[in-house]
Amino acid sequence: MTGKPCVDVALVHAPVVNRKGEVIGSAVTNLDLHDIARACRTFGVDTYWIITPFARQRELSAEILEHWLAGHGRTANPDRGEALSLIRICADLDEAVTGVRAKWGKTVHVVATCARPRPDTIAYARLRRQIHTGRPVLLLFGTAWGLAPEVFEKVQVTLPPICGAGTYNHLSVRSAVSIVLDRLLGIGDL
Amino acid sequence: MTGKPCVDVALVHAPVVNRKGEVIGSAVTNLDLHDIARACRTFGVDTYWIITPFARQRELSAEILEHWLAGHGRTANPDRGEALSLIRICADLDEAVTGVRAKWGKTVHVVATCARPRPDTIAYARLRRQIHTGRPVLLLFGTAWGLAPEVFEKVQVTLPPICGAGTYNHLSVRSAVSIVLDRLLGIGDL
Repeated sequence: MTGKPCVDVALVHAPVVNRKGEVIGSAVTNLDLHDIARACRTFGVDTYWIITPFARQRELSAEILEHWLAGHGRTANPDRGEALSLIRICADLDEAVTGVRAKWGKTVHVVATCARPRPDTIAYARLRRQIHTGRPVLLLFGTAWGLAPEVFEKVQVTLPPICGAGTYNHLSVRSAVSIVLDRLLGIGDL
Repeated sequence: MTGKPCVDVALVHAPVVNRKGEVIGSAVTNLDLHDIARACRTFGVDTYWIITPFARQRELSAEILEHWLAGHGRTANPDRGEALSLIRICADLDEAVTGVRAKWGKTVHVVATCARPRPDTIAYARLRRQIHTGRPVLLLFGTAWGLAPEVFEKVQVTLPPICGAGTYNHLSVRSAVSIVLDRLLGIGDL
């Protein structure tokens, strides 16, 4: 690969679905900020977008970041601030896509993730090759029970579900992001 | 592979090291129980051992499990109980190793993990092949800043650090477990 990969991650809090398949908005959690930012920083992700339409949730997220980037957390654990500095908070997916396009000056390949098989999938190996040629990619992850149907209508392709033995498919979104980033951007002795 | 893999995961809360390299005991966290159990269940891990020498911490862990396995959580979210049912709580590593050996009736291959390179490493691909031949494996993960030196003295080999671009190596233990299990036990279209 020539230079740093152009990969962003977006964690979508709305629109997502609940256990019954109803479209909802979920709450931002402190741990999703921390764990996913640390994985993003490890694997060379450029920006980690937190998407929520709820203004109070965006304010809460900004307060948490403030603690680690400028407050006591900055000196207590500078490694954490280094990861959390990747976060940008925005109101909806369109705002994130516009931001990514402006940053890289070209069209961004928006790729969704889903715990269930979908028809429009792209293999991990193929997307990895595209990333290594420098194509800008925005990876979407859904909180709660996953991205809402209207999100899938906006994206070009979806990565296949992460599978192990058996049929249990209830990984945390933190685990899912970590595994997807490793598959697409991991290096070293596998 | 013939049959289910014989792989267990142990999350060690003591002895581990803190930021300064001092040997300490860390606190059990609710999220380590949930996220790691869900990853274990996804990838076919047989038992997820929670190791802590602190009796009150073992009691707390048991109370959390009780909620999801027999209390309100059992009906509210049965998927969660299915994952958490893999957990066994014990006081030290020897107790876990004895339990694994008794369960499978043969010697267990104890494999540590570390965020820093170590001389005694085994490649992921090699350990994956061993697992697929049915060799019982116990994977050790350290909380806080990682497993203490006395743990490494007891194990045969260590998996290489998980690396992305750059030198940041502060993944959460939840991310590390998820990635390691995917590398060793993941299946499907990569």
